[in-house]
Amino acid sequence: MSKLLIVGTVAFDAIETPFGKTDKILGGAATYISLSASQFGIGSGIVSVVGGDFPKEYLQRLNARNISTEGVEIIEEGKTFFWSGKYHNDLNTRDTLITDLNVLADFNPVVPANFKDAKFLMLGNLHPAVQMAVIKQIPIRPKLVVLDTMNFWMDNALDQLMEVIAKIDVITINDEEARQLSGEYSLVKAAQKIHKMGPKYVVIKKGEHGALLFNNGDVFFAPALPLEEVFDPTGAGDTFAGGFIGYLAKTEDISFENMKRAVIAGSNLASFCVEKFGTERMENLTNEEIEKRLLEFKLLTQFDIELS
Amino acid sequence: MSKLLIVGTVAFDAIETPFGKTDKILGGAATYISLSASQFGIGSGIVSVVGGDFPKEYLQRLNARNISTEGVEIIEEGKTFFWSGKYHNDLNTRDTLITDLNVLADFNPVVPANFKDAKFLMLGNLHPAVQMAVIKQIPIRPKLVVLDTMNFWMDNALDQLMEVIAKIDVITINDEEARQLSGEYSLVKAAQKIHKMGPKYVVIKKGEHGALLFNNGDVFFAPALPLEEVFDPTGAGDTFAGGFIGYLAKTEDISFENMKRAVIAGSNLASFCVEKFGTERMENLTNEEIEKRLLEFKLLTQFDIELS
Repeated sequence: MSKLLIVGTVAFDAIETPFGKTDKILGGAATYISLSASQFGIGSGIVSVVGGDFPKEYLQRLNARNISTEGVEIIEEGKTFFWSGKYHNDLNTRDTLITDLNVLADFNPVVPANFKDAKFLMLGNLHPAVQMAVIKQIPIRPKLVVLDTMNFWMDNALDQLMEVIAKIDVITINDEEARQLSGEYSLVKAAQKIHKMGPKYVVIKKGEHGALLFNNGDVFFAPALPLEEVFDPTGAGDTFAGGFIGYLAKTEDISFENMKRAVIAGSNLASFCVEKFGTERMENLTNEEIEKRLLEFKLLTQFDIELS
Repeated sequence: MSKLLIVGTVAFDAIETPFGKTDKILGGAATYISLSASQFGIGSGIVSVVGGDFPKEYLQRLNARNISTEGVEIIEEGKTFFWSGKYHNDLNTRDTLITDLNVLADFNPVVPANFKDAKFLMLGNLHPAVQMAVIKQIPIRPKLVVLDTMNFWMDNALDQLMEVIAKIDVITINDEEARQLSGEYSLVKAAQKIHKMGPKYVVIKKGEHGALLFNNGDVFFAPALPLEEVFDPTGAGDTFAGGFIGYLAKTEDISFENMKRAVIAGSNLASFCVEKFGTERMENLTNEEIEKRLLEFKLLTQFDIELS
């Protein structure tokens, strides 16, 4: 079992879906990633920043799951990053209502000494300059570096993003972002082009349509579990990424065969995340529930057809 | 191996995609369904209608694949159904340019005597009154009746469509049509409602995102093979349906386990159909190619994760 370092936002979210709305609740990419990875019992640490308004109790909830928040800087006179969004009726699209960067605007990440030997590094969705600053603080190259990013950085910081992409092993982006980054409509061709930018593994997230894992010529597909109700999609992508790297950190095996399992493990956890508002479901999830749904994933896709 | 009866259009198509355009070529739902089912070496027969302008050579091409066209009425003074469409750059959406019903407008289907004992009946996308007329001409209920339909009939002949839906075993529709028919956004809930309308099995086609098979509480998912190039999507849904029922007719096993294999077999054949214009790829397909790609389907989704 390897140590996992996560850089990403720790934030307040206010969410509105067709099923209801929340006040400011615990959110942020690093929050979802760490909660998801914690399901595998690994020790992880977050590098992030919050303001003086951030409840200590939120950090304690993470600490209770063996997630170190030593690397979460608290700027007492500052305010925590705040995102507010409203989902449309189909839950596949949303409007961002508020993005208050606050303390995130001048974030200088500092990796705590006892995480400089992390074997697994997860670069959550953030400004690529911050992601690069974290990479540079790790003296020995981790066994695996996973990057999550989004179209916003392709639009606004493409050169810096490309420098990060050149240094990582796995990139996780959604289908539209893969098309934007590569200029190719076909996801097969998009993955080929992205391979050439650096990452040996390309994970393309398609939301309710599942996820594809490319490794040069090889491809694996993990479906999303068909759900009766999706309550709140916030954090599903980060939960997927956290489950993916958490599974790999636990098993310490970064072969393509094991990455297939990691994609399934991530998809499985993401299927829980969307069942309640915010982090609620991820903070109240039992091993029995996870195992039971893993069996559903197997039944969903496994078939036995005779090849002559 | 059971006899398969197919009712559906036999038509001229003129297709434009970002990769080129065709003059009038062989098309129609029954054409694609029968070509796909013929890959399993079963004997099938088409019930349809064409005009005097329809080349005998087209029918002979079908006959050469053990597809009987005895039930294809030729109205010498009439013109064949003609559809023309233009695909957008993403190939997922298209504009219909021309729909000339011609002889299809007054089509009275007649099931040939030697297909009245067909054990497998495929009702291709057509006016539900025509589908019902075929059902009524079969004296002994077939072992399996599969229906394909579309939003056009939900908009324009819903009552007649519901009567047909009440009499069949399997319905194949796309995701938007499943939502329209059921009034439910969630495909899980949509399938539950459609079950109550009659069909024990509900197949929801999601194009490049694969297909779902529902059987009451059970669900199976078949991915679409990620392709480098999709050349012409025309006929992919019919090819899927033809592969599905063709596999079942060949194996004569309509259990849920075997339907999973049939969904994979249909997805596999559909992945070839889109590689060339019209029926070209389906008319030049070897068993070796089919088997090789079936293995790719296995590799695409099969994983081995330990359940404790």
